[in-house]
Amino acid sequence: MSSHDVSAGGTVAELGEFGLIRVVTAGRTQPESTLLGPGDDAAVVAQPDGRVVASTDVLVQGVHFRLDWSTPEQVGRKAVAVNLADIAAMGAVPTSVLVGLACPADTPAEVVKGLTDGMWAEASGAGAGVVGGDMVQAGQLVVSITALGDLGGRTPVTRSGARPGDVVAVCGRLGWAAAGLAVLHRGFRSPVTVANAQRYPEPVYAAGPAAADAGATAMIDVSDGLLADLGHVAEASDVGIDVRTGLLEVHPRLVEVGTALGNDPLRWVLTGGEDHALAATFPPSVRLPEGWRGIGMVTKTGSGVTVDGEVYAEESGWEHWR
Amino acid sequence: MSSHDVSAGGTVAELGEFGLIRVVTAGRTQPESTLLGPGDDAAVVAQPDGRVVASTDVLVQGVHFRLDWSTPEQVGRKAVAVNLADIAAMGAVPTSVLVGLACPADTPAEVVKGLTDGMWAEASGAGAGVVGGDMVQAGQLVVSITALGDLGGRTPVTRSGARPGDVVAVCGRLGWAAAGLAVLHRGFRSPVTVANAQRYPEPVYAAGPAAADAGATAMIDVSDGLLADLGHVAEASDVGIDVRTGLLEVHPRLVEVGTALGNDPLRWVLTGGEDHALAATFPPSVRLPEGWRGIGMVTKTGSGVTVDGEVYAEESGWEHWR
Repeated sequence: MSSHDVSAGGTVAELGEFGLIRVVTAGRTQPESTLLGPGDDAAVVAQPDGRVVASTDVLVQGVHFRLDWSTPEQVGRKAVAVNLADIAAMGAVPTSVLVGLACPADTPAEVVKGLTDGMWAEASGAGAGVVGGDMVQAGQLVVSITALGDLGGRTPVTRSGARPGDVVAVCGRLGWAAAGLAVLHRGFRSPVTVANAQRYPEPVYAAGPAAADAGATAMIDVSDGLLADLGHVAEASDVGIDVRTGLLEVHPRLVEVGTALGNDPLRWVLTGGEDHALAATFPPSVRLPEGWRGIGMVTKTGSGVTVDGEVYAEESGWEHWR
Repeated sequence: MSSHDVSAGGTVAELGEFGLIRVVTAGRTQPESTLLGPGDDAAVVAQPDGRVVASTDVLVQGVHFRLDWSTPEQVGRKAVAVNLADIAAMGAVPTSVLVGLACPADTPAEVVKGLTDGMWAEASGAGAGVVGGDMVQAGQLVVSITALGDLGGRTPVTRSGARPGDVVAVCGRLGWAAAGLAVLHRGFRSPVTVANAQRYPEPVYAAGPAAADAGATAMIDVSDGLLADLGHVAEASDVGIDVRTGLLEVHPRLVEVGTALGNDPLRWVLTGGEDHALAATFPPSVRLPEGWRGIGMVTKTGSGVTVDGEVYAEESGWEHWR
């Protein structure tokens, strides 16, 4: 492969499928779990547990990301991160990522290179490899990622195991991506930490297996918004959940941005999606693992998701096509 | 779930994301290998081998399929089949499929239902389950499938193990999808068996593990065209391959269609893609497994892929963006 041209000038059409594959695979290194990487009919990945955890998410330009807001690298990071967070939320450790990429013929090859650079960086940071994929022509840039993970003997932590009396806890940021969206929508580019939170999440992957090891009874990653996603746990577990605002961290930076833009930062924390924090429930006797903080309680079925005991009046999460 | 409305009337926008998920998952049954199916953050699938074989393919409306030529069910079948063929070509048995689906808001929910019906039917027929997915809004219908498979203790059969003196063999149809494309392009709808071959392939999945068990040294599924895909084997294995036309089956139906349309049916067999037959190389002493037929020989490196000892003059395969 080293004898081939791996520059990424021109469009994907000029480079052609096989040239593009060389550009996006050249110089990559795989983790030990990748027994056979890209280039054959399929990849082969070690799954020592004997079970594989698998999740797919699709990101569409103009819907899930904007290339005038984010670099291709940031979009690539985001596409992989939202999937790896799903793997972590089952209590599994990410092993690998497969990439389906559709883009117009006049897409600069540099954009595809940047996307895959970001994907590889995010996957590597989690110990996973990009083991395969497919690149095809379409009218719009669409990125479909499948992430695989290994349970290492753990029981998968589903959404359905929460019990009344359990503690509700989160690990990772809440409200930051929503605040970043508000910033970017107004045409601002700063504060950069807030804007970047919209560009790509920074889930704490290791917190998922740690929660499973500690005895988490249910877990989910917060993609749609804290209240919406706790709603999924409450429904699947047939319980209620009460969030205590006094336990929620509203970072001073979010307060500052909220004040400047006339937004309620607590609303971002309660309903903002796309941060991919992990939320889990733990038996009351469990000492929470590092980085996890209690934010509420599991209550009896029928009470739904409440905030300080009351129904939260605001719209609470993202649903496609609504 | 049974208490929810699972009719598929209206558009995906009218139904909403969660309504649509109910429509496409209601009443499905999973194989035993699906330890946790759709509805949580990720699926969990048994991989008793301790390794997972994984492949992703993306299909785009107007590029890989046309809904004026094919029913949604046929497109769903095709999307899954092209992926499962990749799993079979490694010598693995398909276990599961994940679906990334992007479509316009005004897509009839019936179309999405039909697509997933076809996916489920094709997966089930191969013993696999549709274990997860994601549905999002986009300007164009894009289907991204990831298939997973289990090796059952077999050594994965790559493209790189062919040795001079090996027999080249295929299992499955060649040239049919190309003939079907010619038929449909002329505005015909018959012969139906030929037109249907373009609408969805019928790979012989079990032939992959059987070839691996028999000692196949290299294997690939014929997606781009026989000569093009044997070219991938020749390059990866650093050998030449000679195809003997006297050994190729040119079905009378292809001869008939070729005559009617003024096309050379042998060219369809040699260069037509999308049938997803399996092609493999076997040591000369190996008795070919059932359904496999010898079509040529592996030769010394440097001679490339030849037909009856000569370079084949025609363009030989499909490459994206070219």
